[in-house]
Amino acid sequence: MSAIRYELIKTDKQTGARLGILHTPHGSYETPMFMPVGTLATVKTMSPEELKEIGAGVILSNTYHLWLRPGHDIVKEAGGLHQFMNWDQAILTDSGGFQVFSLSEFRKIEEEGVHFRNHLNGDKLFLSPEISMEVQNALGSDIMMAFDECPPYPAEYDYMKKSVERTSRWAERCLKAHKRPKDQGLFGIVQGGEYEDLRKQSAEDLVSLDFPGYAVGGLSVGEPKETMNRMLEFTTPLLPADKPRYLMGVGSPDSLIDGAIRGIDMFDCVLPTRIARNGTVMTSSGRLVVKNAKYARDFCPLDEHCDCYTCRNYSRAYIRHLIHTNEILGFRLCTYHNLHFLIQLMERVRQAIREDCLMDFREQFFEQYGFNKPNAKNF
Amino acid sequence: MSAIRYELIKTDKQTGARLGILHTPHGSYETPMFMPVGTLATVKTMSPEELKEIGAGVILSNTYHLWLRPGHDIVKEAGGLHQFMNWDQAILTDSGGFQVFSLSEFRKIEEEGVHFRNHLNGDKLFLSPEISMEVQNALGSDIMMAFDECPPYPAEYDYMKKSVERTSRWAERCLKAHKRPKDQGLFGIVQGGEYEDLRKQSAEDLVSLDFPGYAVGGLSVGEPKETMNRMLEFTTPLLPADKPRYLMGVGSPDSLIDGAIRGIDMFDCVLPTRIARNGTVMTSSGRLVVKNAKYARDFCPLDEHCDCYTCRNYSRAYIRHLIHTNEILGFRLCTYHNLHFLIQLMERVRQAIREDCLMDFREQFFEQYGFNKPNAKNF
Repeated sequence: MSAIRYELIKTDKQTGARLGILHTPHGSYETPMFMPVGTLATVKTMSPEELKEIGAGVILSNTYHLWLRPGHDIVKEAGGLHQFMNWDQAILTDSGGFQVFSLSEFRKIEEEGVHFRNHLNGDKLFLSPEISMEVQNALGSDIMMAFDECPPYPAEYDYMKKSVERTSRWAERCLKAHKRPKDQGLFGIVQGGEYEDLRKQSAEDLVSLDFPGYAVGGLSVGEPKETMNRMLEFTTPLLPADKPRYLMGVGSPDSLIDGAIRGIDMFDCVLPTRIARNGTVMTSSGRLVVKNAKYARDFCPLDEHCDCYTCRNYSRAYIRHLIHTNEILGFRLCTYHNLHFLIQLMERVRQAIREDCLMDFREQFFEQYGFNKPNAKNF
Repeated sequence: MSAIRYELIKTDKQTGARLGILHTPHGSYETPMFMPVGTLATVKTMSPEELKEIGAGVILSNTYHLWLRPGHDIVKEAGGLHQFMNWDQAILTDSGGFQVFSLSEFRKIEEEGVHFRNHLNGDKLFLSPEISMEVQNALGSDIMMAFDECPPYPAEYDYMKKSVERTSRWAERCLKAHKRPKDQGLFGIVQGGEYEDLRKQSAEDLVSLDFPGYAVGGLSVGEPKETMNRMLEFTTPLLPADKPRYLMGVGSPDSLIDGAIRGIDMFDCVLPTRIARNGTVMTSSGRLVVKNAKYARDFCPLDEHCDCYTCRNYSRAYIRHLIHTNEILGFRLCTYHNLHFLIQLMERVRQAIREDCLMDFREQFFEQYGFNKPNAKNF
């Protein structure tokens, strides 16, 4: 019996989007869902109570970052990541693979693993499927991710083919090295870039290993949105219907809806928290850069249709002042609002699936948000 | 009828410390009390709800800073500072005088006011009693402070005498320029440095103007603590018993107790919030620099005798990790704890006054905190 179980409730008649429940050792959560990112064992600026207030379910934390600081041994000594950070709901940890490829330098990929240099101080480091599993077992996350190779975008076919094959071999090693399958569910990651046959090969390899969940990796790395959607349409049907599907690193409102339409159940992204700290927020009528001078005397809430703590109590003028003067409360208020916005969006997506009208909802949302406009500002 | 009224409840038999109630247009608060500082219309890192949770009463905000950013006109347009920052309890604003002397450059003091340069961009500015009143009237604080000259420490007798006389003339101009005496109480500020006869002259001048409250200024500017205590002992008896007394810019635990012993009712200081953001906290057994590596594996709370949110839920190891990685939640947790510590301390001071045992409490607190040790680390 795996630590993670997915229960399919219903499928939207317009699109094939799935309404489901993800059962974890730390609670059950409705899908499709968005997972806020807490890289260093904290969702930047937010307290656990605030996360619960906005209805956050699963949060994500980064294995690579925690491995370096404070070190997985310290987190383990604290009783695991949940206890360390005072979060009693579910946690997903990534494998460190993406950070090795995006943050570190001088990396050298071998069959055994990856040699690279620490992004903080340049120290030599080595990460492998076995080490990633050891670290994630120490962290004690509910959902662990297999250690994969994240190829650059774009990548040549031959490179991608070798990479996909290595990722499959590494996935098998991850399964073998995983010491706590009863407490933690390990997800495989389908790679293959823009190549359909490699996506297929990757999906088949991983499905044959019978993971309790599957991620689609290597998307949202610079390719056009159409490519992402096409690859999702191709890939998700290759994955078993009774397992959850996770699209990694995607968090713009349009992509969440378009991913759900293509059968994705889980999303994560630093987008809402990152742009918040720069004074940019998502509203029902589109992106708003509250930091701009034009909001200095605007005493309306960030979003007049929003009932979150920020919008109930503070004006654009006040938040603009806080961001402008680098005040932490400003970062808090924008982060709170953005996470609330995406979590509410997913609740509306689920409601649309319940009512078999997700395409209608998409149309309406895109229109209101301004995604349909030519030259629409996106993220 | 003044906007501010002080009600003396009782005097401690051991010391003459006062238990009282400060009545303001936004609520009544027991004294002696500590007021957290919210320089830019936010107590750094804290939400209004968190401030109330720890029992904060009056908070302070800085006229000079708000004058520059966002501008008092914008705050007024928002409906005043309370509404702008979502704080329905009392607010005290300083006059800007101290910031002009501590932050700005090229200042030139004239009878009319002070010419100086903006600390942000070097722009030429001019502040006077009339302008300070205009700005504070626009902010709408419950307690306003008279615009005074803050002389350097140490200052020659002749300089100080002229400064005290000018401050008295400016105080009179402030009273005249103050447009909202029914909504906002204006406090005078006794200056005079270390010179008893000048303190006496300043106190007499101001008392004759009949302010609804008095501050003791020009202390905690670099002089030995003994000097501060001596000047307080000399000055407070010169002030009317039926008016509140406010010691500006003082917030270390020993000075709060020693000030209360000498008849001070109100204190403010950036100390608890500033040191928090550097990972330093106040605990019942003294100062603790949680940022230090030795706390990396310390899973105890910051203070085992504290029941605040931070201490109930987080370990030193976790907070050390957050501060070490510059995570905002770390600044929040330390700030919360430090403000809670000082507000609790004042509650204990008031209880000791009620029980006529403030000197005994002082002895016990100093012993436990380590203030009695030779070479005790202080702030």
